[in-house]
Amino acid sequence: MALDTSWFSEIDDEADSAFSLKIKRKLHEEQSPFQKVEVYETEKFGNLMVIDGFTMLTSRDNFVYHEMMAHPVLFAHPNPKNVVIIGGGDCGTLREILKHSNVEKVIQVDIDEAVTRASEKYFPELCESNDDPRATLLFDDGIKWMQDAADNSVDIVIVDSTDPIGPGEGLFNVPFYQQCRRVLGEQGLLIQQSESPLIHLELLQSIHNAQREAGFATTRSLQFYVMSYPSGWWTGTIAGQGDLTQFRREDAENLNFEALYYNAAVHEASFALPNFLQQALPE
Amino acid sequence: MALDTSWFSEIDDEADSAFSLKIKRKLHEEQSPFQKVEVYETEKFGNLMVIDGFTMLTSRDNFVYHEMMAHPVLFAHPNPKNVVIIGGGDCGTLREILKHSNVEKVIQVDIDEAVTRASEKYFPELCESNDDPRATLLFDDGIKWMQDAADNSVDIVIVDSTDPIGPGEGLFNVPFYQQCRRVLGEQGLLIQQSESPLIHLELLQSIHNAQREAGFATTRSLQFYVMSYPSGWWTGTIAGQGDLTQFRREDAENLNFEALYYNAAVHEASFALPNFLQQALPE
Repeated sequence: MALDTSWFSEIDDEADSAFSLKIKRKLHEEQSPFQKVEVYETEKFGNLMVIDGFTMLTSRDNFVYHEMMAHPVLFAHPNPKNVVIIGGGDCGTLREILKHSNVEKVIQVDIDEAVTRASEKYFPELCESNDDPRATLLFDDGIKWMQDAADNSVDIVIVDSTDPIGPGEGLFNVPFYQQCRRVLGEQGLLIQQSESPLIHLELLQSIHNAQREAGFATTRSLQFYVMSYPSGWWTGTIAGQGDLTQFRREDAENLNFEALYYNAAVHEASFALPNFLQQALPE
Repeated sequence: MALDTSWFSEIDDEADSAFSLKIKRKLHEEQSPFQKVEVYETEKFGNLMVIDGFTMLTSRDNFVYHEMMAHPVLFAHPNPKNVVIIGGGDCGTLREILKHSNVEKVIQVDIDEAVTRASEKYFPELCESNDDPRATLLFDDGIKWMQDAADNSVDIVIVDSTDPIGPGEGLFNVPFYQQCRRVLGEQGLLIQQSESPLIHLELLQSIHNAQREAGFATTRSLQFYVMSYPSGWWTGTIAGQGDLTQFRREDAENLNFEALYYNAAVHEASFALPNFLQQALPE
């Protein structure tokens, strides 16, 4: 059966698969200096943001991604105070981080202000904490920001980027991870969205390898369900120096904020890798 | 972007979403007395079986479904000897069950022989154990088979059915579950494929409710990744009398067979429900 133009379809060339949502209308289209930003109203998934043809988020299923990019790494750190997001212009990850009362400062560095402006308009629920006095929104080059940052000045780096093509490309390699390693110091933790274990396994492996080459002693991937991303099976990869599966369990078991997806059991479960992934990824 | 007829697309009407695979050619098309069975050769996912327009399996990603429909429930039982599969005509679940050396007898009851014949031809790897002397393949009505079976004669029932429309419809209701309960006795366990928690939540709830109404004291859903099913986020729901999260951990940790997905940590992790699901499903 063919899908006509009443559908938005994202084709994954590596898998020759596609995911589609039926749309009511296009709400927004803009060619920023960096990329093409589109927003659609879908039939059943609320609004849909698309960058350069790739699904970024929908109103209905973004909670899984944003919670899992924020909470596991924050609970894995003993006391995260200073957090930096590279990318994340839709502000959904920022909102989750600001739910943590021990966080004192979050800097979001996204190169493209157009993404944030579109999110404010079409995903206002994700931007509800943008005025939090602990938050700073910069529209700048995340690679350069990291180069300029002081040694050992950040507790958590969250790389909430687009795929490794276009503006996101420089965020998946050793020089960038080396800068993160320097800025994070010994205690700090990095998490990077790291694509699908089923259909982008080589990329996932290369992320682990690059993080280790950059000086992170340990790396671990966690898995979660993102319907609107290719295969629906997504990962984040955490890099640090110690046992990355340890976390402040008691705090996670007694969440003092609302979460739709995250809890302590889900945190632990997300690290349980199927056999083929255990074999493909470093210990 | 429109998808032309070089793609097979399955539309999920409840979500107004679609999943598509690019196809090379149609290998098989047959209207059986019960349903339309098609097989395509895809570009990157091997062969694809479609029944009445719904994706049943692909060569590349069926391992997750078949392993998770078989191994958790088998390891949750202290000593499963007699297993019945209702549906499962592609024989992938049967193959996984037969990997368990304590299993003495498996009866597969699928109403439609055409599915098994197509699987033998286009998914021979799933049928490699069909000649195992412990296996019996019946082509018959699973509802009637269960009505005729003796009390307390089976250890495990696996309902590996199509969606609850067409031939699969009668497998999702209280009278069928009551027969399963009778045939399983006090120790027995049932697992039913139970659709997507994100987009078929009401159906998932109704499965729990029907199983409990039929006399199962406890029900638990487990989650796993099936790229080619709607949303990629799938569940099986186990019904029994005791704590369904307990399992023969030592046996699962020392698997004496090959598995690509299943291991003891994955088993445990599959029961970790996100908050919204915990709230939606009975304790």
